[in-house]
Amino acid sequence: MIEQIDKEYVLQTYARNYVNFKKGINATLFDENEKDYIDFTAGIAVVSVGHGNKRVADAIYKQVSNITHMSNLYAIEPQALLAKKIAQFSNMDIKIFFSNSGAEANEGAIKIARKYGQTQFEKKRYKVITLTHSFHGRTITTVKATGQKAMHTQNFEPYPEGFSYNHSIKDVYDAIDDETAAVMIELVQGEGGVQPLDKKEVQDLANYLKERKILLIVDEVQTGIYRTGEFLASNLYEITPDIVTLAKGLGGGVPIGAVLTTHKDILTYGDHGSTFGGNFLSTTAALEVLDILEETKNSGALDETIIHFQNKLSEVYEKFTNLFTKEVGLGLMRGLRVKDGETLTQIINEAFTQGVLVLKAGKHTLRLLPPLTISKEEINEGFKRLENALSKIK
Amino acid sequence: MIEQIDKEYVLQTYARNYVNFKKGINATLFDENEKDYIDFTAGIAVVSVGHGNKRVADAIYKQVSNITHMSNLYAIEPQALLAKKIAQFSNMDIKIFFSNSGAEANEGAIKIARKYGQTQFEKKRYKVITLTHSFHGRTITTVKATGQKAMHTQNFEPYPEGFSYNHSIKDVYDAIDDETAAVMIELVQGEGGVQPLDKKEVQDLANYLKERKILLIVDEVQTGIYRTGEFLASNLYEITPDIVTLAKGLGGGVPIGAVLTTHKDILTYGDHGSTFGGNFLSTTAALEVLDILEETKNSGALDETIIHFQNKLSEVYEKFTNLFTKEVGLGLMRGLRVKDGETLTQIINEAFTQGVLVLKAGKHTLRLLPPLTISKEEINEGFKRLENALSKIK
Ligand SMILES: Cc1ncc(COP(=O)(O)O)c(C=O)c1O
Ligand SMILES: Cc1ncc(COP(=O)(O)O)c(C=O)c1O
Repeated sequence: MIEQIDKEYVLQTYARNYVNFKKGINATLFDENEKDYIDFTAGIAVVSVGHGNKRVADAIYKQVSNITHMSNLYAIEPQALLAKKIAQFSNMDIKIFFSNSGAEANEGAIKIARKYGQTQFEKKRYKVITLTHSFHGRTITTVKATGQKAMHTQNFEPYPEGFSYNHSIKDVYDAIDDETAAVMIELVQGEGGVQPLDKKEVQDLANYLKERKILLIVDEVQTGIYRTGEFLASNLYEITPDIVTLAKGLGGGVPIGAVLTTHKDILTYGDHGSTFGGNFLSTTAALEVLDILEETKNSGALDETIIHFQNKLSEVYEKFTNLFTKEVGLGLMRGLRVKDGETLTQIINEAFTQGVLVLKAGKHTLRLLPPLTISKEEINEGFKRLENALSKIK
Repeated sequence: MIEQIDKEYVLQTYARNYVNFKKGINATLFDENEKDYIDFTAGIAVVSVGHGNKRVADAIYKQVSNITHMSNLYAIEPQALLAKKIAQFSNMDIKIFFSNSGAEANEGAIKIARKYGQTQFEKKRYKVITLTHSFHGRTITTVKATGQKAMHTQNFEPYPEGFSYNHSIKDVYDAIDDETAAVMIELVQGEGGVQPLDKKEVQDLANYLKERKILLIVDEVQTGIYRTGEFLASNLYEITPDIVTLAKGLGGGVPIGAVLTTHKDILTYGDHGSTFGGNFLSTTAALEVLDILEETKNSGALDETIIHFQNKLSEVYEKFTNLFTKEVGLGLMRGLRVKDGETLTQIINEAFTQGVLVLKAGKHTLRLLPPLTISKEEINEGFKRLENALSKIK
């Protein structure tokens, strides 16, 4: 039924699995036949505090019973409080603009970088360098910022000029010229294959760019909000970027994005805007999400979860060397390189049958992004089911 | 307090009014000092079913207690049901893609138009014509699609090529060439000054474009969802565009946007995507919003509200011919042209003091966008307060 309605009325841009999820409790989902699934996807790193989180649900209910939305022409108290909390958690001296998605956050980042580059120097700087395996979004400009060549289909041309791509950080240095405004990277490439960059290489690049007043933009849409174990992956890498973007995990499932920048005065009145961005609903939800995650982190529970998850994953990796070639990732952003893409597809399908949800990244990486609040029991059960699935792959 | 935190941590892209709204009931808001305001803004046409709407709050609570979000890689039942409902209400033979904002909806529309233009003809068509006083969003591409020249600041260059602007529908014909993929219009220009286009002119244009297989995109981000009295302004204008975009009023305050298109197969797997777009939360909220508004429309209440609001507005207009030069708008998207911009600013500020919230559009239009569920008493009280304010303007 749902499949038929979806195919009749929804533009078919996703090849969907037509399971009909009805209920969720933390990292466990139930479909319409009450079959349960351990969720190692979290809606692609979105459901940071688990499904059906009661504290977030209550905070949302209270807020929408009062005010869901008012325009940014008026002050929005939870927005201001959320901005302050993000600044404190990130340990950066920043101001913030709120958007509604990762793509919109990156649009804001690119606008800031371009205005900076074209107003702060005698010779205008407008170019942005990104990495070949990056993913930055689906608007026309963020499609072009995305390094994957397959994304720049002629169908959506003309794209804005000024983007170029390099395979690795080492190559970026040669690509920089006197029109380069910014370099934009993910610290762990999510869609690109759960590939963490080298810490020292990133720190060296950050220093090099700072000396030349070229901005470092870190797209933390997927890595941010404790996904790697720290509030920002930038905290883990011990760098202070000029611009950081967030989305996914910030609202626990409520659409929200954010651009953080140390360049507090580049954008001025009228330079940017968003009808919904930072409204009462999304920022109230995010405040509660951050409170929960702060407690999870400070109590040591998050670090324990990460260790347990990693140990379980290593066990699987060692048991199935016939299927996997490498362990990759950080924190609760984990992957196993599969020997080929066809095998990966089989694994994902068989895992689903066995009752555990897993993802694909890049061409042949099995990707795991559980809720950060996943319980030990859920982890154990999920890996048991995953092993059941793997033992069925030829 | 809120002002200080906002100024310290939020990028200052809005010149905000630092009132601190704490609670809302339908079209009435209360600040932290319990002062009440009649809301003739609805968060700029967003809060379609009023503040603190209990039915929507309950629907949201139920949904977020179960599942707020899962990835579009899996089916999302309320998304499919919402797509079906929008198709039925719009009376169009369409498929839909869900985004998180008006800007994102327009990005989707432009992507569809470009792919259509570059795959369906021997000579590639990629150009999009818009109107000079239009507003289409704040991403780099939708800034460029926006006709207002002031928006195309050099600071955010380079923009994508392929956009051009005309002052009126009549001028559009001359601007069309064999590379024109689409013409994109608002039927009532919202930000541009609450200016409705002429129905016959629009119908003639629609026919002209159809004959030449050039797409008509109608940006109904502000006019859609019963704002003009019909579900779509396109219904009121009795046209069937190729693409319609929605956002603002659709979720009653929950961030959501939508692209509707009769060209159901132009976008295919992998062509477009959004992490949050069409998730359980936003589509469940929108389903409830549409149910409420359908009832409001079918019972005759919406039409009565529109007539009452319009009568009250005409009274004000006639009483204050010293300040106003023209009545403009349709449905509950209304404006009064003010003799000059300075007077308009005085009016908005004095209205706030008197306890009624009103908006600016363009350079000198007083804009009124109340919730569609505003009560007769709230309308009367709001206009009483507005008259109090107007009588204080020199
Ligand atoms: C690193 C990164 N940036 C940007 C995006 C785009 O975010 P959204 O889908 O919310 O627009 C994604 C989404 O997967 C992402 O992983
Ligand atoms: C007609 C129109 N299109 C697009 C937009 C952009 O919508 P959003 O602010 O949700 O991105 C607006 C916002 O005011 C609008 O009025």
